[in-house]
Parts: sequence; C-alpha cells; structure tokens
Amino acid sequence: MKIKRSERLIDMTHYLSEHPRELVSLTFFAERYSSAKSSISEDLVIVKETFENRGIGSLQTVPGAAGGVRFIPGIKKDQAEEALHILSDQVSKSDRLLPGGYLFMTDILGDIHLMNHVGKLFAGAFANEQIDLVMTVATKGIGIAHAAARYLGVPVVVARRDSKVTEGSTVSINYVSGSSKRIQTMVLSKRSVKQGARVLIVDDFMKAGGTAAGMKNLLEEFSATVAGVGIFIESEQDSEERLVEDYISLLKLRSVDEKGKTIQVETGNYFDRVSSFLKQ
Amino acid sequence: MKIKRSERLIDMTHYLSEHPRELVSLTFFAERYSSAKSSISEDLVIVKETFENRGIGSLQTVPGAAGGVRFIPGIKKDQAEEALHILSDQVSKSDRLLPGGYLFMTDILGDIHLMNHVGKLFAGAFANEQIDLVMTVATKGIGIAHAAARYLGVPVVVARRDSKVTEGSTVSINYVSGSSKRIQTMVLSKRSVKQGARVLIVDDFMKAGGTAAGMKNLLEEFSATVAGVGIFIESEQDSEERLVEDYISLLKLRSVDEKGKTIQVETGNYFDRVSSFLKQ
Repeated sequence: MKIKRSERLIDMTHYLSEHPRELVSLTFFAERYSSAKSSISEDLVIVKETFENRGIGSLQTVPGAAGGVRFIPGIKKDQAEEALHILSDQVSKSDRLLPGGYLFMTDILGDIHLMNHVGKLFAGAFANEQIDLVMTVATKGIGIAHAAARYLGVPVVVARRDSKVTEGSTVSINYVSGSSKRIQTMVLSKRSVKQGARVLIVDDFMKAGGTAAGMKNLLEEFSATVAGVGIFIESEQDSEERLVEDYISLLKLRSVDEKGKTIQVETGNYFDRVSSFLKQ
Repeated sequence: MKIKRSERLIDMTHYLSEHPRELVSLTFFAERYSSAKSSISEDLVIVKETFENRGIGSLQTVPGAAGGVRFIPGIKKDQAEEALHILSDQVSKSDRLLPGGYLFMTDILGDIHLMNHVGKLFAGAFANEQIDLVMTVATKGIGIAHAAARYLGVPVVVARRDSKVTEGSTVSINYVSGSSKRIQTMVLSKRSVKQGARVLIVDDFMKAGGTAAGMKNLLEEFSATVAGVGIFIESEQDSEERLVEDYISLLKLRSVDEKGKTIQVETGNYFDRVSSFLKQ
C-alpha cells in the first residue's frame, strides 16, 4: 500500500530524530513507505527545510549508491541563548544553597527537559566534529552524558571510582583533584573504548579541572583522542590554576553568597567557543 | 506568515516527541504556526493516525478550554517482540562472560539505541499509569532510568550508596541484599521525592530483589507510592526467595555456562504483565 506524503513526513521526522547522525539510505525509506525514490527525495527536501527553519538541525545528503541522508541535530543561536537562560535561571534559585556554600543540583541533572537542552547545546557545539562516544565519570554526569549521546547518536561510557567485578579487566589511574588536592582513582573497563576513538568528555561541574584532566589521562591509556570537553557549570577560577584549557562550558558560577542567599550564574564560554549555528 | 501543512506536521511531530505526556493546547500550536485552530485540529488527526499506524504512540485529546492534546508513547506487540529479541541477542553474546560467571553489560547500558528500546518498552508497559518520576540506584541503572523517563516525560531520581554533601539532607536505609546477604546502604536526598509521588522503580538486574525491595522501603519513608518496578534482566530464582513480587522484567537470564561459554537468555515476564499495546 502506498503511503500518503503526510504520513511519510511524520514518520520520517520521528525516525530521523531517533537516529541522529546515522546514514539512512533512500532505499530504506522507499521500501518503508512503498514509494518511489523520487517521492522520498521530495519529502526529504521538505523535512530539511523545516528542520533548518525550526532549528531542529540539518539534513546532510550523501550522493551515490552507498549514499543517503543524515540528520545532524543543531541549534540556532537564539535557541541556544534561550536554553542557557532557562538553565541559568534554574541554577541560580536561592533554595539550592546548602550549608558550606554547596549547591543542590540533583534535581536539575534528573530533569529530562533540562537535560534535553543540555544535550542539544553540546550536540550543536560539536555538530561538525567526528565523535565516537561520550565519556563521563560516575555519578552526577551520567544524565548529561546520556543526553549528549542521544543527540550525537553515539554510546556512553562511564568511568567509576571503584573497580567492580562486572567491569571485567579495567585500566585505572590515580589523579589529583585540582581543587581539593586529594588523590582520587578512576577506573574504566578495557572493553569500553576502542583505540583511536574520538571521545567527547562531559561532566556536571569543573573547578580546577582535575577530574576532566584525569579523564583525558585515562583516555591516553586507551590511545583514544579527546574530541572535546563539555562542562555544564564551571566555577570561577584563576586561569593559571586550570588543568584543562580547551573546554566548552554552558554556565559559569560567578559567586555564591551563603549569608545573603544569592547565587550568581552567567553564561559560560559557550558562545566564545562555538562558532557554527543553524541559520536564523 | 502562515505555515504550510507539511511544515506544521514535521514540527508538531518533533515537538510532541520531545514533550511526551505533556498537555499541549491547540492555541499553542495555532500561535506557533500562525494558523487557525481548525487547521491544527485537522493536522492532529493526521499525526494521531500516523503515530498509531507506525507504533509511535497515541494522541489523547482533552476537550474544553483547558484542553489540548497529549502524546503518550506506546509500542505495538510485534515491535515489543522485536525489541526484546534485539536485546536478548545482545545479552546472550558469549564474549560477555567474565570469570566467575559474571556478565559484562556496561556496553549495553551505554548504547543509546538499545536504551531507546528499553525506554519505549517500559513507557509502553506503563502507558496507562500515572507516573511522576523514575527512580533507580547508582550506577548501572541510570541509563535505563533516563531512557524510561524520557519517554514518560518525568524526572529521574538516583539513590546513592554513600551520602554526599551536595545532596543536602538525606534519608538513608540499610537493607540486606537478597542474594549476597550483605548489609548495604541506600541514600536519597530529602528534596528528591515529594509526598504522594507515584514512582516507577527501575534497575538493570534483579536476583532475589533485595535492591528493589530496598528502594520500595526507602520510598515508604517519603510517603511515596510505588507505581511499578521495571527490571532489565532478572535471573532465575526460586519464587519463594523473591523479595519483590510485582515487577515487569524485559529479559530473564536462564543459565550461564562458564565452561561451555554460553549464556541463555529469554524474554522475561513482560508479555504476562503488560496487557495493553497499540493496535496492530
């Protein structure tokens, strides 16, 4: 049975959003909808235009027999600004303040709508990069890693603080946390990362960057390449004490005033480091 | 500027899939596309039909001034069978076998395509239930929790093994792991769960069910209600030793033969416990 264009457009949109960065052949769609490839091509022109207009992403067309179409999630600059605004509003709520000036962030990291924003922001920032997997360290960065990985269409690997029997053989490193100067351990299963893999490191928080630097060192043991470092919130820090130079941060914690119960948050270096957005 | 139907259908599909179970008013779409509500209603009929035909989910229409439309992700029976088949194929690969008969599962739990299947299966199973949040315990269940939460449109909360200062005040319980008989601790931030919340508990693995029972006990301290328990893999276990009776499992580990290097996996109780699927 031939499928109507409207049904094709709806299902294609859904299929492509669930398969970001995957090359989908025209034949696949032609068979899925019992439709001619020429009709599929016309559909894809409409999908492409709408995805670009609406800031959903871009559609790359790969010509030739082994070709097809690839959906690259992206973001427009004003959408990125709005998302960062929503996130910074959430983080700066004064009831997050815990004794000692710590911030309660667990609700944000478990909020799937906010994590969708985070995932899109990172996927947009690395839209033109080859990324093979997203890495984080347990526990708090895992939601961020899954959100980014979903829009990048790649797997997540999680380094642990301890070695478990269910990880099989592992590689472990010791590193010094930049801010507390404590020696910590990070363990990653040997099977998790292939040699030469291009890895996006993400984490929820960075001060001096000891943990991110630890992840970079750990990846060296796997002969993997760090394709980027994405941080949800960085805190104000003397740049000479930074252990990681090249990173993208969504937000920056400017100051925490425990007595006055205020949290000052601003946009991180996102717009300085991200140059390519979908057209307005 | 008036927006064409094809563009509306594409953007609506994308918007609804990113906002599962959320009530979206017709006015919202009418303003978004500068279109008459009558056109939006016609669009939604087409989206509804396609979502149902393609096994994406159902669209609930809520009449009245405060009404609108709600996308409930669902799954068809044959799609559920196929997803479970893919998952069981992955789990039964013999190279997962670790010394001691343990299974390496980290790659599966980090594979976003497989996690999408898991999320859809759980969302389909609980499509007719009121769920306010998804809970798991660190670390391995977190990917599953995020996948389920994304299709259910609710937040994730993660119980930890240890209490951290960034969790604020916490509630902790001790429980006895059913299989190893070891006493373990589980900690949950006080702010994480509201009184009366209906919680879906998920975990990657269940043997006697001590951990799931621990999460149930912990939720009692919050006066929350367990709306369901979803397990990725259960292992063969005498039913009299089970600490949790009412759960849905996707897969069941029948046997692990370390010498013969075989892993036998079958479908869990999913189809016995799930009665409502999208129509074929």
